[in-house]
Amino acid sequence: MQTLLLDSDDVRANAPLPAVIDAVEAAFGAYERGTAQMPAKSYIDLPQYNGDFRSMPAYLSVDADAPEATASEDWDAAGIKWVNVHTDNAERGLPTVLGTMIYSDPETAFPLAIMDGRELTMLRTGAAAAVATDHLAVEGATSLGIVGAGVQSYTQLDAIAAVRSIEEVVIADRNAERVADFLDHFADRFDVRAGEISEAAACDVLSTVTPVESPIVDRADVGDHTHINAIGADAAGKHELSDEILLDAKLVIDDYEQTTHSGEINVPYSAGTLTDSDIYGALGEIVIGEKEGRTPADGLTVFDSTGLAIQDVAAARVVYTAANEAGNGTAFDLLGLSDVEP
Amino acid sequence: MQTLLLDSDDVRANAPLPAVIDAVEAAFGAYERGTAQMPAKSYIDLPQYNGDFRSMPAYLSVDADAPEATASEDWDAAGIKWVNVHTDNAERGLPTVLGTMIYSDPETAFPLAIMDGRELTMLRTGAAAAVATDHLAVEGATSLGIVGAGVQSYTQLDAIAAVRSIEEVVIADRNAERVADFLDHFADRFDVRAGEISEAAACDVLSTVTPVESPIVDRADVGDHTHINAIGADAAGKHELSDEILLDAKLVIDDYEQTTHSGEINVPYSAGTLTDSDIYGALGEIVIGEKEGRTPADGLTVFDSTGLAIQDVAAARVVYTAANEAGNGTAFDLLGLSDVEP
Repeated sequence: MQTLLLDSDDVRANAPLPAVIDAVEAAFGAYERGTAQMPAKSYIDLPQYNGDFRSMPAYLSVDADAPEATASEDWDAAGIKWVNVHTDNAERGLPTVLGTMIYSDPETAFPLAIMDGRELTMLRTGAAAAVATDHLAVEGATSLGIVGAGVQSYTQLDAIAAVRSIEEVVIADRNAERVADFLDHFADRFDVRAGEISEAAACDVLSTVTPVESPIVDRADVGDHTHINAIGADAAGKHELSDEILLDAKLVIDDYEQTTHSGEINVPYSAGTLTDSDIYGALGEIVIGEKEGRTPADGLTVFDSTGLAIQDVAAARVVYTAANEAGNGTAFDLLGLSDVEP
Repeated sequence: MQTLLLDSDDVRANAPLPAVIDAVEAAFGAYERGTAQMPAKSYIDLPQYNGDFRSMPAYLSVDADAPEATASEDWDAAGIKWVNVHTDNAERGLPTVLGTMIYSDPETAFPLAIMDGRELTMLRTGAAAAVATDHLAVEGATSLGIVGAGVQSYTQLDAIAAVRSIEEVVIADRNAERVADFLDHFADRFDVRAGEISEAAACDVLSTVTPVESPIVDRADVGDHTHINAIGADAAGKHELSDEILLDAKLVIDDYEQTTHSGEINVPYSAGTLTDSDIYGALGEIVIGEKEGRTPADGLTVFDSTGLAIQDVAAARVVYTAANEAGNGTAFDLLGLSDVEP
């Protein structure tokens, strides 16, 4: 038995988006059904370095008979992502968020794969937005606005385009170089242009992927039936959308603890402007059919995404399986157990 | 920047024991001084596989001016060990405890090394026993008894022999093959023989490294001034030493939460037979000089070791540093950042 090492290129090359989206959807279902285990994230705070570490362990078990499961067989998966936010890294030419994922066999605990957790984070975050968009955006959505042209914007477009026939894309960012890179990357596949935040927000679907601490999307900017994926907020004090948007929308969250403490809703929630009664439900409840997604009566919808460890484990399983089947990656005898048959 | 992969052989080959023991001692000091962060272990319980996963993240910062620090410069270190206990693994030819350690730069979060966590666990557990032995065993100790000839027994002897001039070793285990392997391994270096538990327990130093749930060492077995390292208990319900030993001894623990819940003392502690007033102190308190180690008045001493995440991080730093200087291990561009200068 050897451990498969999957670098950032390997992760990207072995991540069929429809499969990642299906796996992440199944993970939300398992979480709601109580067949997942996800201990609270542990934090190590290092103010002297303007950084922190987060450990995100999880296990999930998916029943093939569950309506949201697309696999033909039951499956389970376990692992941990060790991730961080170090805001001074940009000055060093390093990404703010790095990450390493250990993907383990739940039955034996053998580390089947160790992979780049940064690439994986982008993938599973895009996949969660796609799951939410699939349940909450209008069926005929063709336009997508994205506010923030950083690393997460790419997988937002790729993943959302896997669940809706996106034709027109508006990218809004004050950094012209980032916008140009984004346009370059997608010009062949979409009618993509730079625009103001208000133009992005008027699209059928909007994803916000910025680290701002003061809302940049106003209620008046947003279309009548826009579905918004609020991705950027990942810590207390951060929010991208005006309170009016959150209060007017059908508001769906990924996880109650995480969103009320560090998600898009954390600021108005802490202030008491937004309360439990303003939250429509969790994405998992919609996935398993316990609550309805978009109905004809719905206008604005919002998905507050903080990112769950079960998404990482589900996405890691897809990447490992694809890489293993294709013979990609680098086998490494980390534990000195190469003489043991799997 | 690339990540250094260190397999089990690499870990073993790059672990100078005196340096590991010093680093682990400094880690206990940092923990007591409040310059370490060690979130509670997270557990994922998988009764369907007779197994569990544990995530052990930690950070520590050591001041070179601290009396227990042997380094000439301040240092800090961060990382996480993802470890498990899967009792059915033996039937598959796999170790019960596997483990993967990610060792990270606290300043940038870059994963400097990924290493075999199983080998590391043995090392840092041996090192903790050595630190305790150094402070608690009689100065002239020359004999060491070990109960349990499993994987942990080897590093117990290696590490303890680094702090006391061990000449005579008694190994006790019902498994003759394991005993023979142990004798083979150490015959060249020590006067080592198989013996009964009572013979092992009569030595100057005793290490117990078994998973038993009913005490196997009686009060009458133990020498007048024996120092015992109680290593085996790592879960509620496990204990190796009779209550009389624990109550008569100068009792030192590694961590209050962990030992009262899952260490050697957990069973009598839960029963109320052993209370807080029976605990002399934490190893860290002795390391930083806040409490005395062995004094002429002391007879029996016990160190209850559950294993702390700071030990793993401290040991990983030694292994990474040694491997890096020697050019050992396998550099791997896991994160696709090889073009960034360190």
